Parts: sequence; C-alpha cells; structure tokens
Amino acid sequence: MSSVICSESLNWLYRGTHEIFPNQLNSTHPEDNLAQLLNQCDRPLRVKLGIDPTGSDIHLGHSIPFRKLRAFQDGGHIAVLIIGDFTAQIGDPTGKSEVRKQLTPEQVQANAKDYLNQLRPILDFDTPGLLEIRYNSEWLSELNLGKIQELLATMTVGQMLAKEGFAERYKQENPIFLHEFLYPLMQGYDSVMIDADVELGGTDQKFNIAVGRDLQRHFGKRPQFGLLLPILMGTDGTQKMSKSLNNYVGLKEDALSMYSKLEKTPDVLLKDYFELLTNLPLEHILDNPRESQKQLALEVVSQYYSQEVALTAQKTAEELVKNRSTASAEAVLEYSLSDVEFPAKLFYILNASGLCDSSGEGRRQIQGGSVRLEGEKITDVNLSFDTPEELQGKVLQVGKKKFIKLV
Amino acid sequence: MSSVICSESLNWLYRGTHEIFPNQLNSTHPEDNLAQLLNQCDRPLRVKLGIDPTGSDIHLGHSIPFRKLRAFQDGGHIAVLIIGDFTAQIGDPTGKSEVRKQLTPEQVQANAKDYLNQLRPILDFDTPGLLEIRYNSEWLSELNLGKIQELLATMTVGQMLAKEGFAERYKQENPIFLHEFLYPLMQGYDSVMIDADVELGGTDQKFNIAVGRDLQRHFGKRPQFGLLLPILMGTDGTQKMSKSLNNYVGLKEDALSMYSKLEKTPDVLLKDYFELLTNLPLEHILDNPRESQKQLALEVVSQYYSQEVALTAQKTAEELVKNRSTASAEAVLEYSLSDVEFPAKLFYILNASGLCDSSGEGRRQIQGGSVRLEGEKITDVNLSFDTPEELQGKVLQVGKKKFIKLV
Repeated sequence: MSSVICSESLNWLYRGTHEIFPNQLNSTHPEDNLAQLLNQCDRPLRVKLGIDPTGSDIHLGHSIPFRKLRAFQDGGHIAVLIIGDFTAQIGDPTGKSEVRKQLTPEQVQANAKDYLNQLRPILDFDTPGLLEIRYNSEWLSELNLGKIQELLATMTVGQMLAKEGFAERYKQENPIFLHEFLYPLMQGYDSVMIDADVELGGTDQKFNIAVGRDLQRHFGKRPQFGLLLPILMGTDGTQKMSKSLNNYVGLKEDALSMYSKLEKTPDVLLKDYFELLTNLPLEHILDNPRESQKQLALEVVSQYYSQEVALTAQKTAEELVKNRSTASAEAVLEYSLSDVEFPAKLFYILNASGLCDSSGEGRRQIQGGSVRLEGEKITDVNLSFDTPEELQGKVLQVGKKKFIKLV
Repeated sequence: MSSVICSESLNWLYRGTHEIFPNQLNSTHPEDNLAQLLNQCDRPLRVKLGIDPTGSDIHLGHSIPFRKLRAFQDGGHIAVLIIGDFTAQIGDPTGKSEVRKQLTPEQVQANAKDYLNQLRPILDFDTPGLLEIRYNSEWLSELNLGKIQELLATMTVGQMLAKEGFAERYKQENPIFLHEFLYPLMQGYDSVMIDADVELGGTDQKFNIAVGRDLQRHFGKRPQFGLLLPILMGTDGTQKMSKSLNNYVGLKEDALSMYSKLEKTPDVLLKDYFELLTNLPLEHILDNPRESQKQLALEVVSQYYSQEVALTAQKTAEELVKNRSTASAEAVLEYSLSDVEFPAKLFYILNASGLCDSSGEGRRQIQGGSVRLEGEKITDVNLSFDTPEELQGKVLQVGKKKFIKLV
C-alpha cells in the first residue's frame, strides 16, 4: 500500500498547470481547494486520466498529462488510468467519423497494450499500489436504459449546447447527433465509478471534467478536482503538436530522430518545452539558445532511453551535421528509392545506392556493425522493408564517413 | 387466426380521421398509401396504440383512438396495445414532473388492469388473434448503452428541437433535460419491436410516430403509417376534454351521470361528437338539436352499458329535471355540507339535511331502496364519504318527490 509523501512545496503541482478547478483560494475547505486536500496528507488521492484506445501512436503532446500523473505518483498518490474500450468498441454509430471507427476487442487490447508500453518511461509501473488500470466497459456495458435516463436527466440541452464545439456547430447548423451528448456523460460516469479525487486533462477537457463533478455530486460522492494542462505546440512553433501536421515527436521514435527534432526547438517554445517536458529547474535553462536546445533534447531523450543513449544520439547527430556540411560540397548525397522493388533487403539497398560495392559487402558491413539508419545501429543482416515510406527521408550510413539520404 | 375482411369502402378508415401519413395519393405503392395496403387484403395489419399506465381514469377524449383501433379490428386487423410500463416505473429522473412520478410494478399492473377494463366496451377482446397486449419493458429493459447510442445517433439535436413543445421551450430558455429526448425514441423503438404497420395517436403524436418510421427504416423494417385523430373538445365546448378542467365524461361514470353530461352537449360540438363517439351515419343526425343531444347521449351510454340501461338513465334524468323544476318553486333545495363532519355516513346526511326525520329513518329508507344519489339507487346502509367533494353538486333523493342538492 502506498503512503502519501507530505511535502511543504506544491511546486510539482503547479508546474506547467494551466488551471485547477474549483480553486477557491480563500477557502480552507479541502473540497474547494486542492492544495488544502493535498496538505491534509491523510490518504492517497485517486487521480484519473483517460486513454482513448482508438489509436496507439502517442507523441510528446500526449505525454504532458501523463507527466503530471507521474508527479502525483511521486507524491504517493494513485494513478487511475481509464481505458475507454467501451466507446472504441461501439465506434460512431453514424459511421461518419473516421476517428471513431468501430474496433474489435482484440484491436482495442492491442492498442491499449501498445499505448501502455509507451507510457512505461513516464509512469511508475512498479511501486505497488500506485497504478490502477481500468477498462470502462466494466461499468458502461452494465448500464441499462433506466440508468442512462438518469444520467441524461442531470443535464439540459442548453448546458450541453453551451459546450465549446457544440455551440459553434449548432450555430452553423452543422448536425450534432444526439449520441454525441453521451460522451461527456460517459466520461463523467467513469469518475463516479472509480471515485476520482482529481481528473487530469488538456484545457479542452474542462467541460467533460466538470460533468464528472456534477455526476459525482448526483450520486452522492465527493466531486473531483479538474487539473488542466496546456496543449503542447508542435515543433513548427505555430500549431498544436499533431501527427497529421507532422510537427510531432513520437514516443516510439528512435533516440536520434527524437534528438534531431528537439535540438531544433524554436526559441519561442524553449521555455514551454522545458517546463512541460522536463523536471529541470527553469532557472537552469542556459542563456545560449543553441545550448538550451541541446540541453532540452538530451534531457528528453534521456527520459525515454537513457543518458548514455541520449549522449550517443547527440554525438551521431553532430557527426551527421558535420559530414553533411562537408558532403554538401560533394556530388549526390541523395538516393531515390523509386527504382527499388519493395519489399527490399537493406543489404540490397546498400549496394544499389552505391554505399557498398556489392550486396555481399552490404551484408558484411551490417554484420560488422558499421551500418546505421538514422543513427541507429543495424544488426539484423536480413532486415527488410515493405514500402519505400519506411525509409524515405532517413539517413543511411556505413562507417563514419559514408552517408546517403534516402528519398 | 384472424382473416382480413376486404371491403371496398374505406369510410371506416377516414371517419373522423385528421391525417394519415405518408399519403401519396398518386402512388399506387402500398408503402406510400395506406388505402393501397388495405386494399391488398393479403394479411392483417398490426395496428399499434400506446397506453400510459401512470393513470387509469380515462374519458371519452381518450376513447377516440381506441374506437379507431376497434374499426381496424372489425376489418380483421390486429390491435397491438403497448403498455408503457418501463417509463412509468422509471418516472421522471429530475423528480420535477408530477405527471411522471415513479410507480412500482404493482401500481403499474393495477393501473394497466383498470385501464384495460375500461376499454372492454370499446375493443374486441374476444375474437382470437385480434388483440395483442405488450409491455414495453419487455424490450426496453434489455437495451444497453451501445443500442441506446445507436438509437440516439439516428437523430440530430436540430431535428429534436424542431419538435413542437421543445422548440418553444428552447426559445424561451426553459430547461429541456436531455433524457426527454429519449421518450420519442423509446416510443419509436416500440414500433420496431412489434413490427407496427400503422400507429394511431392524437394529432400531438405526429412527431413521435414519425420517429418510429425512421427507426423502423434504420433497422431494416417497413416503416409504419401514422393515423392521427383529433383531440376531443370538452363538454364546455371551449377547451379540450380534460379531467383537470372538469369538462369530461369519464368511462367509469355511471350511466345517469354520463347521460346527463352528454345530453347537454353544446350545439357546435354535436357533429364532432357524433362523428367521433358513435358509428351512426352522420346524415341520421336529427334536425332538432335538443333531440340530437338525447340521441347522442343515448347512443354513447348504450356503448358503455346497454341500450336498456341507457334508456333507464334517460328516464331518470328526465324525472330529475321534471322534479327539480317543480321543486324549484318550493323553499330551500340546497343543503350545505359545510356543517357536516367528514367522514360522514349517508344516513346521517339524510337526517342532517332534513330529507329524513332521523338517522334511523335514513337507514330504513336506504334499506327500503328509496334513496338515490344522482339518480343511482343506494343500497349500502353504511355508505360513508370521506370528503365533502365527493358529494358536492350531487342530488340526493328520497322516494320520488324529495330532492336536495348538496353544496
């Protein structure tokens, strides 16, 4: 059983936090003020965070609330991960939403497993009692019409239509289907069922978390606090981080790729990235922006790999840049994959691109540990790729001086 | 098994009918035109009518769709009565509606039984295969969140808010609770589950019946027709018949009371009442309004009792009027109940009002069969009343010449 670690300072709570609600600073009542509740130190709080298992590729933007969740764990509190398997298995009944396509239980399981694996570097999976993983089908599949009617009756159409997103759509006469009103209520009911003390989410989750408070009150429970975290900007510095905008750093990316993207973090984002993605004291940020970028990249890669791997990535990246700038004076540094027939073995590409003189030499170079792809050492002689997309834009390297960019 | 009676004329269908939809007169397709479907004569149609078992006192206004349902039965079609026990047992989750208070299964059963008993004079309960009684908890209690989500997803907020009733409330910013959107869908789902070909209802049911059509289509079934009947005006001739407005004729009322109310039917309502409450050819309505009123009263009372009882009621009513007009020349014809302590025995009131010289004489007069209340013979010597309201406005009578109006 976990025990609460009582610390005077709540810096860990406020760091990067956009809003906590309710937050009646004048009140000393622990129901109005999360700091009061934490300072009571009488029991571990149950801190809820939901996971949508319709996808599993997560990026640094997604990591923000999980990092806050970890901070609660470090204080001895219980992270309760809710896997929204119920909704994922239903999908969008109108069939209009690509995002909400119906998944089989097996797909949901696989996505959830992959998702959780990516969270391993962030959350404390090991200390007994600090992590609870729940699937919301456990209670949502048990709901009957009577109970659903009770949930619906806690809200009015006006309240629902005031929600950001709905309001504009209704005004613009874009159809809002009635079942969409169920989602906030289902999320809220999750809070009831797991007795959440705090729910974490992005700033876009305020409405849904507030619905959870209402439902908890309706069912005679103590309403949760909402803790909202900012939406992370993408590496382009202009839009929120998103896979579709290709301005993201994925948690599955290799160390070199992660490092290379982060060391180019735009100056305007440096403070936010430090605050949200690391635990480094902000006054330690270096004055030199170029050095700060490296410091950030090193720190973040260390979290997901290790300091050693991060340092290697840094070194490789520096070498890549050095060689590229040297090589840029030379002839062709790019090799077009359009002539390669896929699936294709890597040793074949080593030969075809001219990095090696034959496929045989390609095999030997791999065996000898001299071949790297995007800085990562390749050890599998028979490594094969199904599509050119898996390679496009990546740097293939033999030894320390022979590079080619695959295009 | 019932067999369809094929008749050329569809007068029975159109009599008093406000609207049938869809009604594409130019189409010969039986899905567009109920007359076409009926004229195919290939199978008995399933004709749905819902009963709300939150109450059981029904009046002539409620009888209109049941009378139409009987007309379908007479044509060999199947009356499917849906008893809305599910909703009645849930009640209104907001607790705000008096009408939708939560009932126990026993209360629902009792109400439904009482309701059905009052329908016995209207519907054909005896011919095998012509009547099906279904409780909608049979399927509604089985609905899970996935299915309910599917139902909700068939409609948009805009469609629902366009519904009469919702539209005004939303405009006036009167709260509409989300669960209210479920009622039309539940009613519609009933149509899916019982494979309704036609649903009957008042003109206020158009939206709900149309939702049933949509849901049937959604579940791959043939959509039902809607047949809408007018809302009956009350005996005051100004507002729709309603218990709370006291302008109603209840199906539980005794023959004399029914007769007395109907023989005062306002002239402007005579044609409607004949059309909706009787099967008499409209050209048979007498020219003399006074005689028409009697004809109507006699005919309707005959339906719920018998021609014999109706004729007796007519006779008693006439005697009451005669005696009242004679008596009106005499002294006090009213007796105020304000001095009587309730509960009160009838023999006590007979004495207190001066109709009898003592309570003992009152008892003997009851035993002797000489006492009538509103023309109905009283035989229970110990008959007692709990409140003055049960007696106010009624005529108490001993023998043929002693009357008093209780006020």
